[in-house]
Amino acid sequence: MRVAYQGERGAYSEEALIQHFRTSVEPVPKPCLSDVFDAVEKGEVDAGLIPVENSLEGSIVRSYDLLYERELKARGEVVLKVRHCLIANPGVPIGDIEKVYSHSQALGQCRAYLKEQGLEAIAAYDTAGSVKMLKELRRMDCAAIASSRAAEIYGMSVLARGIETHAENYTRFLVIALEDHPPTVDDKTSIAFTLVNEPGMLCGALEPFADKGIDLTKIESRPRVGNPWEYIFFIDVLGHREDPELRAALSRLEEASSSVKILGSYPRAR
Amino acid sequence: MRVAYQGERGAYSEEALIQHFRTSVEPVPKPCLSDVFDAVEKGEVDAGLIPVENSLEGSIVRSYDLLYERELKARGEVVLKVRHCLIANPGVPIGDIEKVYSHSQALGQCRAYLKEQGLEAIAAYDTAGSVKMLKELRRMDCAAIASSRAAEIYGMSVLARGIETHAENYTRFLVIALEDHPPTVDDKTSIAFTLVNEPGMLCGALEPFADKGIDLTKIESRPRVGNPWEYIFFIDVLGHREDPELRAALSRLEEASSSVKILGSYPRAR
Repeated sequence: MRVAYQGERGAYSEEALIQHFRTSVEPVPKPCLSDVFDAVEKGEVDAGLIPVENSLEGSIVRSYDLLYERELKARGEVVLKVRHCLIANPGVPIGDIEKVYSHSQALGQCRAYLKEQGLEAIAAYDTAGSVKMLKELRRMDCAAIASSRAAEIYGMSVLARGIETHAENYTRFLVIALEDHPPTVDDKTSIAFTLVNEPGMLCGALEPFADKGIDLTKIESRPRVGNPWEYIFFIDVLGHREDPELRAALSRLEEASSSVKILGSYPRAR
Repeated sequence: MRVAYQGERGAYSEEALIQHFRTSVEPVPKPCLSDVFDAVEKGEVDAGLIPVENSLEGSIVRSYDLLYERELKARGEVVLKVRHCLIANPGVPIGDIEKVYSHSQALGQCRAYLKEQGLEAIAAYDTAGSVKMLKELRRMDCAAIASSRAAEIYGMSVLARGIETHAENYTRFLVIALEDHPPTVDDKTSIAFTLVNEPGMLCGALEPFADKGIDLTKIESRPRVGNPWEYIFFIDVLGHREDPELRAALSRLEEASSSVKILGSYPRAR
């Protein structure tokens, strides 16, 4: 099975993918999130893996936008415990470091450490990609923030481990494919919907789930491009879209909203 | 009146501030959003101005986190139409440009233009700050994305105007101060609350506003640090916290939620 992810070898997405699919998977790195969607759509890979949320920094909004724009389905969920390391070229003492490169989310998660050490944060497109770049450029005054696995892959040194501000640091990923997952005993469903801008509309849209005792595990809103101050709402609920209770709630949601897009049902991550 | 904002001279925040306070204001630039809060808390300035939302890219999540952590109040609202320019050192032809520096939100808003022109986007901490940096370094192979005002201030050339993907591009700011604003004829109130994670809780929290016909103009959720998959909800509603209807809804919200923090009432931007 071939699965595409955004980033370089050693990225957290690759780690999540191996955690989920075990050894049977061939990870296929892609430069952008949209390339992951493209690869799945064209059949170049069997599935893709995209980060959707971090427990400290919040949603990865580009993933939500792509889930809404494209026609792929959420088919699986992975939760990865994230442990960040400060990584530099071998032989570089920590005192020589001035600048630190990483993905903006990783920099945000280590903000307290960077401030305390007086290090300048520079946003790059990827965590593992920053490690690779420092190696190629042989920079002796810079470090990167990435996983210990990325340090191993590129033969770099770990100067500090667990530098995230809070230890309870998890990233949630979705597996995307052409079709979603058949029902299991413990599923989740992701849904997007839009509303007319009138009092009580959001409450009316969520009521069908509340009435059926369906647990809402996440809500996110994203601006509707070209319609200032209108939003697309994304919710995750417990249950499979084929469950009778959820089916009834979804048909009531269709009446209460201007548009509904079911992004897919999938087994809940343990 | 002295008002702090994040960024360099020529930043969009400075433009918003002048639009709101007219000529009577002395803008005070600060490197980070948290410095804006610090300056207001210490009485170094009379107020601060922070971006909270862009109509294309969505919420500025760091602003929400700071509004929740600190004890300042929202006292005003400003909506600025954003028009991005590609800016370079005088005499640089557009064909020489390889890399483009700007704030990640501005880069995101011009993604289509950058892709079409084959330009590499590099995230920097500020829009106007990128213009200043290119000037100081006299780089002839790079450009920045910022306002035409930033180009004027630093004596730089505008290579292209209106390069944002969508013309309907607005940023919403809040004025923050030690106290919020007394009631006027057309107000908004920003509120943060947390919930116990049980089915129907969010619907129960929004119902008091729906019942009173109070318009909810925005909802945002942010992760609770240290409590994975629990959220702080931020809502904006029409009306002043002293209005009898809103007061009643707020006291019902207090019963329905684990904690409520009123971030402030302020005149709605026209």
